[in-house]
Amino acid sequence: MPETPSFQSPTGTRDFYPVEAARRRFITEAWRRASILHGFEEVDGPIFEHLELYTVKSGEEIVADLFSFTRKGAEKTYALRPEFTPTLARLYATKANSLPKPTKWFTAGPFFRAERPQRGRLREFLQWNVDLLGDASPAADAEIIATCVSLLRGLGLTAQDVRVKINHRKALAEWLTQRGLPIDRQPALLKLLDNKGKMPPAEFAKEIAAFGFAPEQAEVFQKGLIRVTIDERTPTGAPADTVVDVTYFSEAITPLARELAAAGVLDWVDFDLSIVRGLAYYTGMVFEVHEASGAERAIAGGGRYDNLVELFGGPPTPAVGFGMGDVVLALVLQDRKLMPEDPKLMEVAGQRPDVFVLSNGTPEAEAQVKPLVGLLRARNLHTRHTYRQTRNVGKLLEEAVKLRARFAVIVETGTTATVKSLETGQQTPPVPIPDVAKLVGG
Amino acid sequence: MPETPSFQSPTGTRDFYPVEAARRRFITEAWRRASILHGFEEVDGPIFEHLELYTVKSGEEIVADLFSFTRKGAEKTYALRPEFTPTLARLYATKANSLPKPTKWFTAGPFFRAERPQRGRLREFLQWNVDLLGDASPAADAEIIATCVSLLRGLGLTAQDVRVKINHRKALAEWLTQRGLPIDRQPALLKLLDNKGKMPPAEFAKEIAAFGFAPEQAEVFQKGLIRVTIDERTPTGAPADTVVDVTYFSEAITPLARELAAAGVLDWVDFDLSIVRGLAYYTGMVFEVHEASGAERAIAGGGRYDNLVELFGGPPTPAVGFGMGDVVLALVLQDRKLMPEDPKLMEVAGQRPDVFVLSNGTPEAEAQVKPLVGLLRARNLHTRHTYRQTRNVGKLLEEAVKLRARFAVIVETGTTATVKSLETGQQTPPVPIPDVAKLVGG
Repeated sequence: MPETPSFQSPTGTRDFYPVEAARRRFITEAWRRASILHGFEEVDGPIFEHLELYTVKSGEEIVADLFSFTRKGAEKTYALRPEFTPTLARLYATKANSLPKPTKWFTAGPFFRAERPQRGRLREFLQWNVDLLGDASPAADAEIIATCVSLLRGLGLTAQDVRVKINHRKALAEWLTQRGLPIDRQPALLKLLDNKGKMPPAEFAKEIAAFGFAPEQAEVFQKGLIRVTIDERTPTGAPADTVVDVTYFSEAITPLARELAAAGVLDWVDFDLSIVRGLAYYTGMVFEVHEASGAERAIAGGGRYDNLVELFGGPPTPAVGFGMGDVVLALVLQDRKLMPEDPKLMEVAGQRPDVFVLSNGTPEAEAQVKPLVGLLRARNLHTRHTYRQTRNVGKLLEEAVKLRARFAVIVETGTTATVKSLETGQQTPPVPIPDVAKLVGG
Repeated sequence: MPETPSFQSPTGTRDFYPVEAARRRFITEAWRRASILHGFEEVDGPIFEHLELYTVKSGEEIVADLFSFTRKGAEKTYALRPEFTPTLARLYATKANSLPKPTKWFTAGPFFRAERPQRGRLREFLQWNVDLLGDASPAADAEIIATCVSLLRGLGLTAQDVRVKINHRKALAEWLTQRGLPIDRQPALLKLLDNKGKMPPAEFAKEIAAFGFAPEQAEVFQKGLIRVTIDERTPTGAPADTVVDVTYFSEAITPLARELAAAGVLDWVDFDLSIVRGLAYYTGMVFEVHEASGAERAIAGGGRYDNLVELFGGPPTPAVGFGMGDVVLALVLQDRKLMPEDPKLMEVAGQRPDVFVLSNGTPEAEAQVKPLVGLLRARNLHTRHTYRQTRNVGKLLEEAVKLRARFAVIVETGTTATVKSLETGQQTPPVPIPDVAKLVGG
């Protein structure tokens, strides 16, 4: 054999040592909790799908961004899933007749993109998807946004840390038409708006002028805020000089704003003319969640896609949903010091020991350590013992403290042990070994 | 566009609707709980690795069983992970110097095999891996087996339902050598033993005779039990007439049996001469968990592999571990009626609603439903409301009962509500709306 090869994880993928795995679980459990609070049920599909599931939705140009593969002798091409929506549409289309109305589903798992990795973007990442199918109402749009806000709030973020930026594709198109921009030129403008963050303001102003907008209108797109009137209330953060004519938006957005107010999340929301979302399939409300300073990529994004289920052979089905990746979210949490410190993280992940068992070092006591460990584990207690040779009680108690065990149990004889709380320091007198379990919560 | 294609999940993969997702979570959470009880910490790696990670361990012949792929212009070939052990060895080798001794790790996630799917074997499946590195003692072997038994016991299986069959590769080789079978013929015998379950007894007896074993010795291999003496104790299930000479096994197996006895799991164990495990890299104890009647494939399998970390560039490191897939385990649980019924399953997966909010139908009460729903969710309560048009209290209470909500909250006026326990039927008098949360546990 030649020299031992150097083994590394593939570019853009991650190894998860215990702290990183606990951090991942901290995020995925928060996703799960927010989903369940709002009555969404978990679903999932395969990690790889037939390639055509993605080309049907996104066209052949998506193939370059996918990890795809074939099997020798098989006619099918597979691809690692880059997103969940096509799988979701397939799941729904397959059982549409027997599913509840509305159907509320979430999923969280690994997804893959064959792009060059960069800050906030990896080749393998986790994504949370939340979708509500079978309800075309603004209340459904609001429920999706409220679920996203529940997640953000549940992690300790506030409406000052992050903003939910909402727009409406249909209303935007009507407004642009009314201002004289022909429908066939609108996709180019949407693309320009979508790239706004990536270009200098002067260049953006110049390009927007080419669509027939005056400089002060360019500024409106730049700042992007729409005034929405609900019961005389102006949305948070919309200075008067950046407000545009609302005629074409009020019909689309005011009912949504009312629902967001009823759900208690309107304070998190800006109505922003410049949010378009890259994907072509959105048909109504679209939104993105951004760190307030605009420092990172979008934390989440989604919207209404009323035509997609039909594309996958299902009945016409209104649908609204969003996706959130783990990478940008973790950057924002770390930046705001909301990611727990390592020991706390292990505890949140359920990995803090309940009990550490040791003996006073006599042979008859030592012989009882392993049986007691087995007994406590059979009672569902996370139980540890030393792997070191030492029988020094002081050193072993130090090990228990370092592991952050809640209790130390010191076997004193062949039949008795004392229980010491490592949180209060209190210690029991010797008790019969079979009584230990209930003293430590088992 | 041509006719809408028929979309199906790829052969050998699964769609997870809510009940299937809850069933998956029931198993993965049981895996996690057993791991943590025994002090193992979670780790993970990428879903795909460099192909060479697998060929280094298993040779080029493994490539046919893998889903592998390349990227245009890239020199590397990737493969969907068929097992975790090479990733584990890489993780350990990379940080060996800074890791605790021993290192105790578990993982659970999707793995992939490009084989023809059959009962108990899919192309995408979940696998739990538990490994203990840096400890060569029989106590480490026993801890691995005890963790596996904790999982089985935690799911309600008993030592009558499933058996842990243990052998020792080194002792077996010594015993065969002593009986006159040259070392270079032993791999063929191991292969025959490994295939024993797949051939008729007569054929097995004939083939074993070719290795120079008499018919009564063939029967020993057939029944496979070794007597192990620990404190005059004969292992469960070992009839005297199937016991073989223990001289070459006692040194390897008796200390392990003692440790298994101390951990309280010896009753689950048979010492079985015919367990060899297909993989070449095992160096000591090997084991498989089988449904007692032998009806299904192995539920779990593993053993000691003291040379593997070094193969991946790490220091010489004793290691022992096992893997368990979700597919056979679920079949066994279903067969024993230990898989919870669907509603219970949703509850175990944390998806039973805490509260269902409705109103008595007056406009001022109805206007408070959504704000109250938002308030309760902000208090971490799983809260539902109807999506139907009806305001009939009786029908809405039926919906709450059908969802198995713990409480129904009926908004009575613009400021008050009553709380009804759907478990006891008790109902409070009207209370101020802000007091509802604490009455339902928020």
